[in-house]
Amino acid sequence: MVYGLARRELRPKVPLRPGEGEKHHLTSMEGLAALSLDALSSVAYGPEAIVLALVAAGTGALTATLPVTLAIVFLLATLVVSYGQVIAAHPDGGGAYAVAKKDLGPTAALLGAASLVVDYVLTVAVSLAAGADALASAFPALARDKLLVCLVGLALLTAVNLRGVTESARVLMLPTALFVAAILGVVVVDLLRSQPVATVGTDLSFPAHESLGLLLILKAFSSGCSALTGVEAIANAVPSFRTPRVRRAQRTELMLGALLGVMLIGLAVLIRRDRVAPRGDVTVLAQLTAGAFGTGWLYYAINLIVTLALLLAANTSFGGLPVLMSLLARDHRLPHLFGLRAERPVYRYGVTVLALMAALLLLATDADTHRLIPLFAIGVFIGFTLSQLGLVLHWTRRKPDGWKRRALINGTGAVLTTLAGVILLATKFLEGAWVVVVAVPLLMLLFARVQRYYTAVGEELGLGRIPAPPDRRAGSLVIVPLGEVSKLARHALGAALALGDEVVAVAVHADPDKRRALREAWDRWNPGVRLDMIESPHRSLVQPVVDYVQRAARDGRQVAVLIPEVEPRHRRYEILQNQRGLLLATVLRARTDVVVCMLPYRLGL
Amino acid sequence: MVYGLARRELRPKVPLRPGEGEKHHLTSMEGLAALSLDALSSVAYGPEAIVLALVAAGTGALTATLPVTLAIVFLLATLVVSYGQVIAAHPDGGGAYAVAKKDLGPTAALLGAASLVVDYVLTVAVSLAAGADALASAFPALARDKLLVCLVGLALLTAVNLRGVTESARVLMLPTALFVAAILGVVVVDLLRSQPVATVGTDLSFPAHESLGLLLILKAFSSGCSALTGVEAIANAVPSFRTPRVRRAQRTELMLGALLGVMLIGLAVLIRRDRVAPRGDVTVLAQLTAGAFGTGWLYYAINLIVTLALLLAANTSFGGLPVLMSLLARDHRLPHLFGLRAERPVYRYGVTVLALMAALLLLATDADTHRLIPLFAIGVFIGFTLSQLGLVLHWTRRKPDGWKRRALINGTGAVLTTLAGVILLATKFLEGAWVVVVAVPLLMLLFARVQRYYTAVGEELGLGRIPAPPDRRAGSLVIVPLGEVSKLARHALGAALALGDEVVAVAVHADPDKRRALREAWDRWNPGVRLDMIESPHRSLVQPVVDYVQRAARDGRQVAVLIPEVEPRHRRYEILQNQRGLLLATVLRARTDVVVCMLPYRLGL
Repeated sequence: MVYGLARRELRPKVPLRPGEGEKHHLTSMEGLAALSLDALSSVAYGPEAIVLALVAAGTGALTATLPVTLAIVFLLATLVVSYGQVIAAHPDGGGAYAVAKKDLGPTAALLGAASLVVDYVLTVAVSLAAGADALASAFPALARDKLLVCLVGLALLTAVNLRGVTESARVLMLPTALFVAAILGVVVVDLLRSQPVATVGTDLSFPAHESLGLLLILKAFSSGCSALTGVEAIANAVPSFRTPRVRRAQRTELMLGALLGVMLIGLAVLIRRDRVAPRGDVTVLAQLTAGAFGTGWLYYAINLIVTLALLLAANTSFGGLPVLMSLLARDHRLPHLFGLRAERPVYRYGVTVLALMAALLLLATDADTHRLIPLFAIGVFIGFTLSQLGLVLHWTRRKPDGWKRRALINGTGAVLTTLAGVILLATKFLEGAWVVVVAVPLLMLLFARVQRYYTAVGEELGLGRIPAPPDRRAGSLVIVPLGEVSKLARHALGAALALGDEVVAVAVHADPDKRRALREAWDRWNPGVRLDMIESPHRSLVQPVVDYVQRAARDGRQVAVLIPEVEPRHRRYEILQNQRGLLLATVLRARTDVVVCMLPYRLGL
Repeated sequence: MVYGLARRELRPKVPLRPGEGEKHHLTSMEGLAALSLDALSSVAYGPEAIVLALVAAGTGALTATLPVTLAIVFLLATLVVSYGQVIAAHPDGGGAYAVAKKDLGPTAALLGAASLVVDYVLTVAVSLAAGADALASAFPALARDKLLVCLVGLALLTAVNLRGVTESARVLMLPTALFVAAILGVVVVDLLRSQPVATVGTDLSFPAHESLGLLLILKAFSSGCSALTGVEAIANAVPSFRTPRVRRAQRTELMLGALLGVMLIGLAVLIRRDRVAPRGDVTVLAQLTAGAFGTGWLYYAINLIVTLALLLAANTSFGGLPVLMSLLARDHRLPHLFGLRAERPVYRYGVTVLALMAALLLLATDADTHRLIPLFAIGVFIGFTLSQLGLVLHWTRRKPDGWKRRALINGTGAVLTTLAGVILLATKFLEGAWVVVVAVPLLMLLFARVQRYYTAVGEELGLGRIPAPPDRRAGSLVIVPLGEVSKLARHALGAALALGDEVVAVAVHADPDKRRALREAWDRWNPGVRLDMIESPHRSLVQPVVDYVQRAARDGRQVAVLIPEVEPRHRRYEILQNQRGLLLATVLRARTDVVVCMLPYRLGL
């Protein structure tokens, strides 16, 4: 491990190649296209979650959809104003982790990081599940295989992100525009009609289990809050905007808020008017689509657009979580390997971990959106609250112009999001929110323990102190394990002679005939290097060599074992080569303190 | 890759630690216990396969069970006599591969090896599937989850065999004795009763689809031949017997033949008398058990004994196939890694490949014994035929006393097994035997291509020729990538100074502040080694080091890169360390021809 060798740039959520000019940065509209899908696409499951909660009190209770939605939109408005200030205060990008680290101290930072991790994973799972719902609304044959559909989608996203995507705002512009047009189209056309054109799905009866009391309203509210996830994305990505960055980002945040609010209210009005209740395997949004446009090609097209938007929303986590994990790794709070980007500019380990966690969640919930929703949004609300609390401290410490007003705005936001978070937790605890309550502290503990380990290692390595001068050893011995006299042996001895003061070849053979033949060939070759033969009548080749090396390492010289490797030109032949050498190297590295050297010998094959 | 370093002893099917004395070798009875389960346990599915074939002509056709069984027992008798001669001719163990290699030439050897591979895999799959059937007969709740039961059993066997089993004849003695006692008990008690005590399973009606013609008889015969699998095991393991080996092994073969014959005929008589037809999820053997002993605790006990015997029969393949694969690897017909036994005396790769192939088969056939049977036995009959053909050549070439009689016996055996093989193939081709017809040539092709590759590599390495003397390089340069001044750096430079004529440290940092700090610390430390600093504003650490190394390698000196690794004491911390070093080493080995050295630095943590 070589500390600090890898210092890497912070990759914003919409990565831009460094060195790319201002013209590659985002305008407000481009920013909206690139960064809003996560938030906007939640209209596909948020209103539905409200309906599903309310219908427990019978279809009559669906009239409450509108007031509940208005409360959520009020919260949204507060968030938009608040995040406008986050953007101003953190023009370098203000994810909950970064803000909490700067303003609130290490524990809050760990809390922010843990909740973000949970949020990213849930975004993938919920978006895929909702995408499968949308797809199954168009193609009912898929309704039974939603889990499979989700896992296929997840595999696709993982493969694309492991290869490395050159995300660009332009790619996302069309899907976002189509999605917004589709939803607004449904709302407007449906409102103009006196009654739905067509109904889809099967009629289900909903006897009232409970009365429409405060608890049910709060439940509906907390389910609907899942529609607010993703509004923080713009504030995280301020550096991606074209100058004036802060202004453009704030404008984008406002546009996002306005669009999302209009969509939510519009859908709520329609749900109330058309008394839209769950109908079998058809989503609420699909029912409204059929009501507006019938079940012709537009119905299929809109469901496909919604599916695509949700798939792309899931993809935003693949941009976000691996970057967050690399930041945590740089702070020694996750294994350093999450900061590695190998050859391609891809955080391979972060992508893989995200995919595995999302797959686990989908399997555990059978890709059922309504079982995932209770887990969702809590992590997001922790992040909302931390960002705004941090900002309150930010203002009260620095006291810029109008700091009191600013602190008041963010303080109000923090209070409201805390309140919403508490409602979420209280009403959804047994339905799944407990998972988050367990997962977040466990993640915090993990981060803290990893950090403690790295600190202890740094201590043991004497980081920050000047060590004694290097030891000067009394010469060196290079041991070369060989099997036959060949060009490989020649190549290996040549390198060994350049590196060692003394070189010795060793061979392990069980068969006396082979030993004799090798000795004869060696004597004829006479390479000027001693050959030690180890008998090993019945044991593996590895242990005798390890024993030999351990004996040789006792006399104070620096011992190195040089293992020549045949490297085939084609990768498909690799399984045919080198396995013995690799095994020997692995065991030597585990059991001895000698230098283990590998020397490639390239074949033409 | 180091050719020939690993020469390993041939491990007989019942492995004995070398150096263990004669008393650890097997007596005839012990040999029977250790080596016969594979063959004997096939009475659990062989007779049932006959019944299932005949019932296509209605339950009346079941009377043909006895004559079909008698034909199979006649073939068995021929095989037993034939294998008695195989034992005499190949006292070192005469698997089809070894015999074919010695007497019939390379193509026959490849055919023998391929058919053995197929046979071993099918033994695992069929034994597990039949074991699941037996278990489900006792516990009907399991009938729907047979595939799961099989996969759990397979996982168990794989885990045990990856850990390494010290198989011993004594361990197998009790299960074998119990199994033989159970089957003979069922036969004798049932014969003594005038009618079955109890019936299990549900009555099914079997309208006659076809008439009881020759084709159906041949089909029943070829299905029943699955009962003959495993009779070759004793001949493969002659070296495991106590002296006089040949006589003891022959006696064991005879006992095996007699026992198997008696069981098969006894079961056939009962099937005929009791008109045993398939009854739902209950095996024929379980029906006969219920007929003899009722459905009390003995019924459960006997079904469990049968299950255990079948599980142990599946386990014999785990003893056999990995050894065969190691022999093929030694002959350069499979990747050499199949000859590696790592730390434990276990052919890990062979075990893994066997488990994967068996799992695939089980999944493809839904663990249905009756879909696996058509694939089975063909491989075995190829082996039977090859062994005996080889022996015919063996006798006619060496002409010992009575060679004509001997050649006649083996020749007859070869003709009969060829005939049986052709019948198998003809009657079962479309039902699944085609898989074997495809798989065997593909495996042969694989072996041949691997061998051709290794031959070409040997040619390129100049194996068997004396190479030129090793080059003497003009000195050496050791490059040490470092991140900080620390004890790790001190340790690495110490080793590097002992190995290189010149040593240089390199550091890659993106951050100018870090670069400055490192330069200052280096100057204060002043270890007597030059530090080269590489800027890398935006790229990974790997490529700049590779570029640096490639430049350094141009001047004719031997270049080595020494990468220090922090080795935590506990394995669970390994993921936290070394990943950067390993990545750098991997890329250097792929892209450059320099020596790549790893130096462990052991932590107390």
